[in-house]
Amino acid sequence: MNSATAVLLAAGLGTRMKSALPKALHPIAGRPMLCHLIDSCATVFDRIVVVVGPEMEALAKVAAPHPVVVQQERLGTAHAARQAAALFGDGDVAVLYADNPLITPATLQRLRDRRAAGDAGLALLAMRPQDPGRYGRVIGRDGFVDRIVEWADASPEERSVGLCNAGVLCADAARMRGWLDAVRNDNAKGEYYLTDVVALARAEGALVAAVEAPEAELRGINSRAELAEAEAVVQARLRVAAMEAGVTLTDPASVFFCADTRLAADVTIGPNVVFGRGVTVEAGAEIRAFSHLEGCHVGPGAEIGPFARLRPGTVVRARARVGNFVELKGTLLGEGAKANHLSYLGDAEIGAGSNIGAGTITCNYDGFGKYRTVIGEGAFVGSDSILVAPVTIGNGALISAGSVITQDVSADAMAFGRAPQVEKPGRAAAFRARHKQAKS
Amino acid sequence: MNSATAVLLAAGLGTRMKSALPKALHPIAGRPMLCHLIDSCATVFDRIVVVVGPEMEALAKVAAPHPVVVQQERLGTAHAARQAAALFGDGDVAVLYADNPLITPATLQRLRDRRAAGDAGLALLAMRPQDPGRYGRVIGRDGFVDRIVEWADASPEERSVGLCNAGVLCADAARMRGWLDAVRNDNAKGEYYLTDVVALARAEGALVAAVEAPEAELRGINSRAELAEAEAVVQARLRVAAMEAGVTLTDPASVFFCADTRLAADVTIGPNVVFGRGVTVEAGAEIRAFSHLEGCHVGPGAEIGPFARLRPGTVVRARARVGNFVELKGTLLGEGAKANHLSYLGDAEIGAGSNIGAGTITCNYDGFGKYRTVIGEGAFVGSDSILVAPVTIGNGALISAGSVITQDVSADAMAFGRAPQVEKPGRAAAFRARHKQAKS
Amino acid sequence: MNSATAVLLAAGLGTRMKSALPKALHPIAGRPMLCHLIDSCATVFDRIVVVVGPEMEALAKVAAPHPVVVQQERLGTAHAARQAAALFGDGDVAVLYADNPLITPATLQRLRDRRAAGDAGLALLAMRPQDPGRYGRVIGRDGFVDRIVEWADASPEERSVGLCNAGVLCADAARMRGWLDAVRNDNAKGEYYLTDVVALARAEGALVAAVEAPEAELRGINSRAELAEAEAVVQARLRVAAMEAGVTLTDPASVFFCADTRLAADVTIGPNVVFGRGVTVEAGAEIRAFSHLEGCHVGPGAEIGPFARLRPGTVVRARARVGNFVELKGTLLGEGAKANHLSYLGDAEIGAGSNIGAGTITCNYDGFGKYRTVIGEGAFVGSDSILVAPVTIGNGALISAGSVITQDVSADAMAFGRAPQVEKPGRAAAFRARHKQAKS
Repeated sequence: MNSATAVLLAAGLGTRMKSALPKALHPIAGRPMLCHLIDSCATVFDRIVVVVGPEMEALAKVAAPHPVVVQQERLGTAHAARQAAALFGDGDVAVLYADNPLITPATLQRLRDRRAAGDAGLALLAMRPQDPGRYGRVIGRDGFVDRIVEWADASPEERSVGLCNAGVLCADAARMRGWLDAVRNDNAKGEYYLTDVVALARAEGALVAAVEAPEAELRGINSRAELAEAEAVVQARLRVAAMEAGVTLTDPASVFFCADTRLAADVTIGPNVVFGRGVTVEAGAEIRAFSHLEGCHVGPGAEIGPFARLRPGTVVRARARVGNFVELKGTLLGEGAKANHLSYLGDAEIGAGSNIGAGTITCNYDGFGKYRTVIGEGAFVGSDSILVAPVTIGNGALISAGSVITQDVSADAMAFGRAPQVEKPGRAAAFRARHKQAKS
Repeated sequence: MNSATAVLLAAGLGTRMKSALPKALHPIAGRPMLCHLIDSCATVFDRIVVVVGPEMEALAKVAAPHPVVVQQERLGTAHAARQAAALFGDGDVAVLYADNPLITPATLQRLRDRRAAGDAGLALLAMRPQDPGRYGRVIGRDGFVDRIVEWADASPEERSVGLCNAGVLCADAARMRGWLDAVRNDNAKGEYYLTDVVALARAEGALVAAVEAPEAELRGINSRAELAEAEAVVQARLRVAAMEAGVTLTDPASVFFCADTRLAADVTIGPNVVFGRGVTVEAGAEIRAFSHLEGCHVGPGAEIGPFARLRPGTVVRARARVGNFVELKGTLLGEGAKANHLSYLGDAEIGAGSNIGAGTITCNYDGFGKYRTVIGEGAFVGSDSILVAPVTIGNGALISAGSVITQDVSADAMAFGRAPQVEKPGRAAAFRARHKQAKS
Repeated sequence: MNSATAVLLAAGLGTRMKSALPKALHPIAGRPMLCHLIDSCATVFDRIVVVVGPEMEALAKVAAPHPVVVQQERLGTAHAARQAAALFGDGDVAVLYADNPLITPATLQRLRDRRAAGDAGLALLAMRPQDPGRYGRVIGRDGFVDRIVEWADASPEERSVGLCNAGVLCADAARMRGWLDAVRNDNAKGEYYLTDVVALARAEGALVAAVEAPEAELRGINSRAELAEAEAVVQARLRVAAMEAGVTLTDPASVFFCADTRLAADVTIGPNVVFGRGVTVEAGAEIRAFSHLEGCHVGPGAEIGPFARLRPGTVVRARARVGNFVELKGTLLGEGAKANHLSYLGDAEIGAGSNIGAGTITCNYDGFGKYRTVIGEGAFVGSDSILVAPVTIGNGALISAGSVITQDVSADAMAFGRAPQVEKPGRAAAFRARHKQAKS
């Protein structure tokens, strides 16, 4: 098969999104929707070119390393595709939309294969939506397209056709260039429409083949509501994949994944768990309810949550435990170590088997720089201790509850730093009496 | 159009709710269901009168400033409506049920307009439920009602009619008074039924018009399950409205709004966020997963959560950040200020650009009164600091980690209050040895 | 009616679960699925016998006190049932599958009654699945079964039959023994299939009766996805039951119950609440959003959450309050007492009306033993206090904020333990200047 190119149209402003963010950058499963489409295309096409609008540098960054061309004026989809003509190569070229991010590699492969079969000069994607509404209808038979009729121009009979145009086209690069150049803008909006390529191909006598795919893959995203629906489709795919891999999801619908979440077999995920980008969890680990993980690794048999937050750069080793209202950031929690309650551990390294008491806080930031806390193996950090970094606590050391630790503590030593307890007999009663008197 | 009055029947005990709370006070989207109906009626009717049962003072408070009449004995719906007869005015009067809170202003307007057209002496609301079940059937044709037949009395043919009585009536006040007075209680339960007004109107030769409305608006709430369904309907409306206004809801189904939640465009709401009453969020702010907001204002570009709780009286200014396990109550967090971890900030004012370290707590309560904490701009409050109010921290001041601050701190000063660190070499090892020995 | 025995086949490995845990131990609503089936059977049958595989001691423990027999080799379902033959008793015996845990007592009773009617020698459970797929079809008429035809062997006409075999059989113990002994393994897999009992019964001229039950009860659990579906079915049952009992669930779908959760009328449960095992909540209590409860008792009118975690052994008395980011473990919170913010209270007893300040932590663990904290009535524990157990705080005592309390405090006394505040004028400014210089 010849090499093939995918041209992704991402210049759309998406005004119905009511957003300052370009539409193609709105995220699904934690990634810009453009990336989902790029990923699918990358497994089927040899080259990817992205067409963006002016002042969309952020989009170009996300597209990298794929080349980007800028459509300076928004004159329609055919005009947008034409901007990339110099990069079409000499094999087949497919034109896709960034707001169709759910299209699968399997569907793209079928489109490419259909064109490559050679009998059809143009192949397009079509679908049978549950509610065909105002989609353009595909008129034809036996898998071949006679013409696309826009809803506004369609007769009642044509409107009753269930097969609709999804807008995605694939043709030989040279012919595609020719057709795109021939598209005219003598219509109400004065725009160059990509769909007109179909009529041009038919006018030349080329056969046009329709490749049907599920509506769920081809529905466009034009509003926040459609974005939410796409998110739901992707989440459902990710949940099913996790369960098939042997993960227990107590309540699948309340678990949110990122596209890159990696979970081993026999991982258990409770209700209401959110995964941000870059999380891996090993076999037998349990992520309990109300946990939030981003950019972290959870080792085998570890127990996280409920109410735990793991932030980027965190590694939790085998059988370690992170409990409620505990936040870890850039921290290594060693094998079997525990941080069970109300703690903030940032930029820390905690040795195997150490116990971090409730309310422990690492002071890793002084307003200017960030510093590390290193705790050895088998250490015991008493509740409500403050570890002012940079600081090192030796193996087996014991920090008394409520201590502020600013200097290193030797292995096996006990350290403390707290004021002695003083009692004033009867003073609480006197305080109450004074307050009650003041009120009367 | 003449002025018109809405009479809201709210005296029902709602025994199927199994609740000590009057049914009309059970909340939907954070507001008593009666308030939802009052709001809808207030946009269509000129006057609202609420009929309550005896010992329902709480309901009267919620109804204020609308007048309330008390139905001393529960003798049926017609009897209830009759209690308000002196307040019917001289235009049209509509009788509604407090347990139909989802009825929209558009539907009420159609009912009022239909009556005002003048050809019909009585107008009623009807619906076509998916499962008509035991609803009374509306017998008639061409938008006019011949009679209402109760399910128990209906023939098989009548039961096959899909149009059902929703119970809501509208007529000229004088005629309504007359019909209500004529209703009799010679039935099995000995009650005066409002529905009998239809037969009385027909007997006088008055035309009765049926105004159809969606079932979702007209379904009554008689049980906790139906209350939960109504809540779901209202939440769905609020979510769609938010997305149409340009708000991203990653997982719409897991976001809970109050009826008065106000969100600007380009606000992003993560999964599992709960809004209580009185929240406004400005453009570009992000409310991350597992956040709970009530009675607060979030400024543009601010970042809240995950795991943040904003309580009433809180204002978060532009680009400020509230992080995990942080609670703010009656607190102003200045522009760009940060409180990222495990803190309680109550009755505090925090200047622009200040940084509040992990574990910071304001002691705003001494068991009797509440006191304020004021922190200037650009201050740095070290981790686990305790600020005993009333206290003022000057601009640019620095509080060392673990300090208990009971006195004001000057601008640009550093303050600390903590015991020196002491180390006892080998004592941790000795402690462990002693414990192990004790066990053996 | 004679006494009857239920034989539960639980030896299956459940390879499609991809789990090291035996399938029957995977939990639904917090209990192993085997326990759900045992509970249902226990209300209908007089004896229960569980057949497990080798090396499934954990399953035997869960089955106790019901007797367990081990199927040493996995030679098919008839072979499994045969292992229990000595324990069939002399009444009827029913053979069920541990991966059918949703079957209700009502259905089991109907199966037992049908067999006991005496006209049929064998009774089986059948269903009409929405998608009959590859289930074996039940061929027969008028409630009697002629034969079961496996999908692979079925003609198109037979495949069009909607009634499917659910696999559950009930017969007189002596005949069941005989039929099980007669089952042969001359099939592709060389296994002894329980279903073959039907043909053996028919060959003897016995009538076989089909008892239809809903698909939702009879669907087997073979994968994590099916486990999640079963969980959803059970949760839906529990939510409906709670609402019928007068509990408000603001968002039923986001509340997770355990099978043994007990809630009184007029309890209100917010969105996103998770109940673990052993929770009881009394009338008028409110469990707010994002709360997680296990093994605890919540008294009348108490308020829990949002963001509260109650762990096993916790008792919250009437009108007490547990607020955000607060964890209680093995702790008694007295009537009207409050712990509103960011606290860990473990192994503590807190008297009526006491107030526990934000950030309070009980140090109940020293790395070796656990110790108790006792706080009297009407005490006030200032914010960020550390109570090092064992320790007792008297009635009406007052602990100053930020104190480390290691010794008992007398009633009505005030105690403190904190370093005095020191101020270094201008030093914060100097610190910033130094840092800025270092950067430049």
